[in-house]
Amino acid sequence: MKPVQVGLIGWGTVGCGVARLLTESGNRYHQRLGTQLILRKVADLDLETPRPMNLDPRLLTRQAQDILDDPEIDIVVELIGGVDAARELVMVAIARGKHVVTANKHLLALYGNEIFQAAAQAGVEIGFEGSVGGGIPLILSLRQGLAANRIQEMFGILNGTANYILTRMAAEGASFQQALQEAQDQGYAEADPSLDVEGTDTAHKLAILMALAYGVPINFEAIAIEGISDLELVDLQFAREFGYQIKLLAITRDDGERIEARVHPTMIPLDHILANVNGAYNAVYITGDAVGPILLYGQGAGMMSTGSAVVADLIELARNLTHGIKRRLPALGIEHVSQTNREVKPLDDLITNYYFRFAAQDRPGVLSKVAGILGQNQISIAAVIQKGRGLQESVPIVMITHEAREAHVRQALAAIDQLPEIAHKTILLRIEDPGLDAAQI
Amino acid sequence: MKPVQVGLIGWGTVGCGVARLLTESGNRYHQRLGTQLILRKVADLDLETPRPMNLDPRLLTRQAQDILDDPEIDIVVELIGGVDAARELVMVAIARGKHVVTANKHLLALYGNEIFQAAAQAGVEIGFEGSVGGGIPLILSLRQGLAANRIQEMFGILNGTANYILTRMAAEGASFQQALQEAQDQGYAEADPSLDVEGTDTAHKLAILMALAYGVPINFEAIAIEGISDLELVDLQFAREFGYQIKLLAITRDDGERIEARVHPTMIPLDHILANVNGAYNAVYITGDAVGPILLYGQGAGMMSTGSAVVADLIELARNLTHGIKRRLPALGIEHVSQTNREVKPLDDLITNYYFRFAAQDRPGVLSKVAGILGQNQISIAAVIQKGRGLQESVPIVMITHEAREAHVRQALAAIDQLPEIAHKTILLRIEDPGLDAAQI
Repeated sequence: MKPVQVGLIGWGTVGCGVARLLTESGNRYHQRLGTQLILRKVADLDLETPRPMNLDPRLLTRQAQDILDDPEIDIVVELIGGVDAARELVMVAIARGKHVVTANKHLLALYGNEIFQAAAQAGVEIGFEGSVGGGIPLILSLRQGLAANRIQEMFGILNGTANYILTRMAAEGASFQQALQEAQDQGYAEADPSLDVEGTDTAHKLAILMALAYGVPINFEAIAIEGISDLELVDLQFAREFGYQIKLLAITRDDGERIEARVHPTMIPLDHILANVNGAYNAVYITGDAVGPILLYGQGAGMMSTGSAVVADLIELARNLTHGIKRRLPALGIEHVSQTNREVKPLDDLITNYYFRFAAQDRPGVLSKVAGILGQNQISIAAVIQKGRGLQESVPIVMITHEAREAHVRQALAAIDQLPEIAHKTILLRIEDPGLDAAQI
Repeated sequence: MKPVQVGLIGWGTVGCGVARLLTESGNRYHQRLGTQLILRKVADLDLETPRPMNLDPRLLTRQAQDILDDPEIDIVVELIGGVDAARELVMVAIARGKHVVTANKHLLALYGNEIFQAAAQAGVEIGFEGSVGGGIPLILSLRQGLAANRIQEMFGILNGTANYILTRMAAEGASFQQALQEAQDQGYAEADPSLDVEGTDTAHKLAILMALAYGVPINFEAIAIEGISDLELVDLQFAREFGYQIKLLAITRDDGERIEARVHPTMIPLDHILANVNGAYNAVYITGDAVGPILLYGQGAGMMSTGSAVVADLIELARNLTHGIKRRLPALGIEHVSQTNREVKPLDDLITNYYFRFAAQDRPGVLSKVAGILGQNQISIAAVIQKGRGLQESVPIVMITHEAREAHVRQALAAIDQLPEIAHKTILLRIEDPGLDAAQI
């Protein structure tokens, strides 16, 4: 049977993983497919920097064009990252009738709809398992494994760098800056970590998962995003006293009418399985109306883990090529994808439990004033910790609320932060208990 | 487009779940597939017992034959359980060119090879996602999502009843009998719980997962099985003192030459993510050479959870039917499945850490005798607990060993159990740390 030929654009970390699997595990894939899966060309602007693997120099080129122009190449793997050049390459590959595999969540979050539509028109397929959660079979699960379900909730730890930082802060009492430095030293964080720690990367991935879960176009813009760079160690410590862990979560929930779409540091119960996802690991806790809660967990990034996802996509596409199958599975797994987005609930309408840390001057009556304003805004207090009166100018008053509406919370905090006894802006964190509210049918 | 017609044999718990999804969520599946997925007939010997759902009486029949004979039915769902009648039905369905979806792990563990071969010859497909781990997309993950990997290890909690019992023993200090009674009262355990608590059901599932992981025929006979019915509460308590939880695990490991294949109560570190899988939940911890460790977690059984898996299979098969695709994906995901089984390492060759509980008479010198025999058999002791000397006839001496070979362990325990100071047979448990030994490439 005619071998399936792969052209790889981007010989970076994940590119090395893919090239290594295709060259070292080729016999196993041959057995699996009944045909060979061959790495035909590898393009990268930089062919000089030493790599953790060697490739036959005859495979290498500096010109991505050599891959796009090669009529023997069936599948193009885009692993250059970034948006503009990657978008151009992917669109050209599609136009030339080549299938595409990409791990580029940033590209898909911004231009996925255009890419999926172009692919559908050209009769080619887009594999993107590697774009979310590395080698965890997440997209496969949403697209096929959970296809019988209405997805009610998803809570994801989707950025290994941010989770590594939060884990070190919680475990070692490190500050955010110390933990970030450690993550950079360990190679988990890039020199510019802002996409990771500000929540943007997590939101890119949530945008992709939401489109799969709800069968709607990708809608990155609708996601409310807060990162972890302002988190202070003291908040992780107070959280623990109340029985919670803080994780940067991607959250979406379908109430039947509107969906929630948000990324922010979140307090979850210490004994929840998601609270125990540590270090650079990723996990997604998905609740479907039939299946109930599911957790998928693993390394969310890295050379071999994301390589595993890319090659899984290659094997699926190769199976279609060898059987002459066209467009069996639409990009989102749904033939009739809704053309309109779901209405997204604004944060103001969110109803959940909250954590507040007030920087109060140590004078009598402050707590009473704060509690009064909360009460006027229909926010009732579930627990309070007021730590030792000391020499400091201000002492933290820390509170957990019963369920409250975010609009009321913001109104109350705006008033509280005007009080002369409050030294600086109050810290707000949202509390969730993944799976608790989702009722199985 | 022509609708896809489903015939359901077995209107029990899972049958109700499947029927409910097909009748209540039909619009969503239509959108997903671009064609209708229709429940055409439901066969059960008992149509009288009240069910948690109603069906149009015109769909119902007492004769499975009505489904097998119906030329309009594309896919037969076998949910009667048991082996002989189910085997007969499945083989007839295949012979008539119908695709089959089954959640029957017992059937597949014993006759899966024959069924898969007959299906391949007849050009039909077998969906069996529901046979292991309920709605957790486990088979999908092994067959497609992790296809790039050599699977190095799998550790599975695959029986909800056994896990429920162990969870109650650990959490409440219940005896095995009390916890079993509770499981029966809660509807988690059947009147005859022996398949669940003796490890047989777990081994059926392991047999299926091993065939998928290694691309070899199903080989249930090769699995060494020990259940949990002899476990005593005191062992769970000592385990905890040493920092371990006891779980009934399905274990397989590939050392490159031979594979391990065993089901037994196993001590795993308390902080391992598998140790925190509680109640009736299932989870599998899989390590692949590329992806590293992955955990897949969810409800391992039940009306809607297993229903979710069965309907996911129906959707996949319906996709093939509407596109006129034949035999795209072999049953094990591998075109060239090895015709010979992997050599299975006998338990005697196992090298791991052990836990022993000796029932020693409270006389001086016993520990020294025991330790002497262990030493003669090249077993070195990592930790010992000897509990308070009391009024009892015998006191437990509890030990954790360094790595030892099981043949040596058995030899040593045989000698120790001959000592006059040892009141009854020594309790042996194996200790594992899933993922620790698996090195990523």
